[in-house]
Amino acid sequence: MNYYPDPILKLINSLSTLPGIGKKTAERLALHILHAPDTQAATLAADIIELKTSVKLCRVCFALSDKNICKICSDPSRDQSLVCVVENPTDMAAIEKSNAFTGTYHILGGTLSPIDGICPNDIRIDELFKRTDQGKIKEVILATRTNVEGEATASYILEKLKHKKIKITRIASGIPMGGDLQYIDQLTMQKAMEKRYGF
Amino acid sequence: MNYYPDPILKLINSLSTLPGIGKKTAERLALHILHAPDTQAATLAADIIELKTSVKLCRVCFALSDKNICKICSDPSRDQSLVCVVENPTDMAAIEKSNAFTGTYHILGGTLSPIDGICPNDIRIDELFKRTDQGKIKEVILATRTNVEGEATASYILEKLKHKKIKITRIASGIPMGGDLQYIDQLTMQKAMEKRYGF
Repeated sequence: MNYYPDPILKLINSLSTLPGIGKKTAERLALHILHAPDTQAATLAADIIELKTSVKLCRVCFALSDKNICKICSDPSRDQSLVCVVENPTDMAAIEKSNAFTGTYHILGGTLSPIDGICPNDIRIDELFKRTDQGKIKEVILATRTNVEGEATASYILEKLKHKKIKITRIASGIPMGGDLQYIDQLTMQKAMEKRYGF
Repeated sequence: MNYYPDPILKLINSLSTLPGIGKKTAERLALHILHAPDTQAATLAADIIELKTSVKLCRVCFALSDKNICKICSDPSRDQSLVCVVENPTDMAAIEKSNAFTGTYHILGGTLSPIDGICPNDIRIDELFKRTDQGKIKEVILATRTNVEGEATASYILEKLKHKKIKITRIASGIPMGGDLQYIDQLTMQKAMEKRYGF
């Protein structure tokens, strides 16, 4: 691609580091940006910088947020006594897309995995227990994935919480075992929410 | 997608304005950028800005360049007496990729199209004539596209240059290499028959 001047080559290289963007797509995007209005390119660049500087984690549920408390935790129309425990923000997004849940979340930031050396202290399990200790939470829905680590994490949390006066439920099966929450269709997700069962 | 904080939504929107990037791909890219190292995101943003500020047109051939004279025009190993006339930088890139050409280019920046109100003054035809008037160019290859506008532009340039002592050629039309005859359109087939050559 040496027939392009260096600034184009540099942008092509930067764009190719993104997932699913090969050299050819990167070339097309770079040429599009080159011919796009200056403001569009400036906005794109500014948005990338803003994303990296202003997105933090909600202090309550650890979801991605640009404020100290995220939209969902500060929304009075959401049921604050109902907490859905998920592994990461992508899984939370998948549940939100289904419109099947009106409570709040707790994002663990991973799953227990002794084989990878990930212990309860490495993910936000203690923070969940602190939330349940405050006495406002009536139900905890365990929506970790249905693979080994997700099930183990759900079992661990159940074990620690079952002596408390909190209803603990697991997102219903219907989700294929080993399946990734972000690729589940909405109907399955709604069904899984609706059919959650007690231990 | 309201479950994402505003900076993520803004970047998703900006990314979706790019060609071939839908909302879902934009979401995946934005989350990738969010979790990528700060330097990678900063480089991407800086490269977008640099592209818009430092890419200009070569003063000789009007190719994209970060200098006043582009790489090809300033390369002594390229045949400066051979000029290939193309519509835009993408077409030039396609020819460069083939490694089939060792001369220089002239980028018109469009084609004649009276129906769209594009006259010879709107594209860089006069600049081509100025180059040929300098007497260093021995051959002009017309490599505009083979559609109505491209053919009309080629004819116009031929008409204006044919009285000069310059060899004028048109890039060949015919069956693409490896092409299946049954899928070739009639016009291409007629052209391929008409322009058949002896061995």
